Amino acid sequence: MAGLVEFKQHPSSTLKAGSGFVLAEVDPDSTPGFTGNKADGQALLADLDDKLAQLQEQLFAESRFGGTKRILLILQAMDTAGKGGIVKHVMAAMDPQGVQFKAFKAPTEEEKSYDFLWRIEKEVPAAGMVGVFDRSHYEDVLIHMVHGWAAPAELKRRYEAINEFEARLTDSGTRIVKVMLNISKDEQKARLLARLDDPAKHWKYSSGDLTERAFWDDYMSAYQAAIDNTNTEAAPWHVIPANKKWFARIAVQQLLLAAFDDLHLEWPKAEFDVGVERELVARS
Amino acid sequence: MAGLVEFKQHPSSTLKAGSGFVLAEVDPDSTPGFTGNKADGQALLADLDDKLAQLQEQLFAESRFGGTKRILLILQAMDTAGKGGIVKHVMAAMDPQGVQFKAFKAPTEEEKSYDFLWRIEKEVPAAGMVGVFDRSHYEDVLIHMVHGWAAPAELKRRYEAINEFEARLTDSGTRIVKVMLNISKDEQKARLLARLDDPAKHWKYSSGDLTERAFWDDYMSAYQAAIDNTNTEAAPWHVIPANKKWFARIAVQQLLLAAFDDLHLEWPKAEFDVGVERELVARS
Repeated sequence: MAGLVEFKQHPSSTLKAGSGFVLAEVDPDSTPGFTGNKADGQALLADLDDKLAQLQEQLFAESRFGGTKRILLILQAMDTAGKGGIVKHVMAAMDPQGVQFKAFKAPTEEEKSYDFLWRIEKEVPAAGMVGVFDRSHYEDVLIHMVHGWAAPAELKRRYEAINEFEARLTDSGTRIVKVMLNISKDEQKARLLARLDDPAKHWKYSSGDLTERAFWDDYMSAYQAAIDNTNTEAAPWHVIPANKKWFARIAVQQLLLAAFDDLHLEWPKAEFDVGVERELVARS
Repeated sequence: MAGLVEFKQHPSSTLKAGSGFVLAEVDPDSTPGFTGNKADGQALLADLDDKLAQLQEQLFAESRFGGTKRILLILQAMDTAGKGGIVKHVMAAMDPQGVQFKAFKAPTEEEKSYDFLWRIEKEVPAAGMVGVFDRSHYEDVLIHMVHGWAAPAELKRRYEAINEFEARLTDSGTRIVKVMLNISKDEQKARLLARLDDPAKHWKYSSGDLTERAFWDDYMSAYQAAIDNTNTEAAPWHVIPANKKWFARIAVQQLLLAAFDDLHLEWPKAEFDVGVERELVARS
């Protein structure tokens, strides 16, 4: 077997939304920093599973001894962009015991009666955990902007509230990985048709998908605005070309690995005398 | 590659605690119904991952259309018996979005102020989900019996409450898979020593493990009593020989597959006209 193809440039730099970032200029078919093909990508993904699993275990282990570090992966995207596949193929490498997954659906009446961050706050990851948000508080500045459910002044208030919220998470030990999976409108069409062609996937299809699809350009504007207003140093946006599912998966995996690296994790030191305990166990 | 070795007799019968069941007569080294070796077991486990994943997705899909079926796997065992490995190696085949994992630790002061089932009730799986309890309400009749924290009359009350609780879960669509992983006292010693020999595993070791180990025989009596008193038709116990980790994993996988089979799952039928939607998407 030939050697692994690795990233030439790291996604944490190539996919980061810098100043003057323009969403429309991202090519959803591209694979920035990676010259390999699908098979190369899948091999890389599999190869790094163990590393990701070990880092997650170290994060969890630290928290048992007072560590407060944690990771929060925020996934935003248009329908069919592959959020579920990221959860299944990237996060599945980690121990389910250390992963806190939350899919945010349309808010309930009770949730709507509070500020939009109320239901989000309750789901932030505990110390030592890797949290995954499938959709998030960003829906409140995306779909709400698209359909005019929030006026410009209210959207401005929400952007600021989000930035304060995310800074507070960061200050209390959370490393935020904020991701938009970026597919093209044509790719969405192909994926919707594929769902309709497979009876095992009909349950994933809803005619509501088409309703939102009609607002595609408005959604792109809303994403651009959200990125412009919430692309902070504490929680920068990464926009991942996602027409190629395999690329989106290795890109998210790389971002997670970089987030773990930033945390400088180590196995907790034994707080007992190993030799003494060994003797006690042997005699027991 | 040679063919897969499969179970000659199904674990749902061979490992089920029947009337007159005696825990002390189970050989923790045995592999009932399975004649293969470790490699055969690992191959079987991997081979059935996709089937398990599909069944879990069907369960989840049904719930999106009003289905109320769900599965609850209850894992009980002495320390080091491999509960974590079951979660990591069996449950990981399923989509994390469809699995509700809960590890029950020593209860908090608030939890203690309520009836013992209060904190359990809050964690039962939602419709369409696979719940996993790493320890459970059974701690309240195991460690409490071992240390005399509950008098015989109170233990009796709890057994009855557990049976009523589990029958209620079953009546509302939950298929309960209740498992004790059964290791030998010598095997536990070997595993504790292995933890002490590996600095990456020191965080899992606590001198409290040795304290409880000293009560080994009392724990076995408490398990026997729990099985005698809560081995119901709705939620029978399965005692899995667990000295061989690979065997415990394939046995639990088989029990889960049988539970899914009992639910007679199907992909939800489309509630829309596929042809019409196809046309609408194509034109969009």
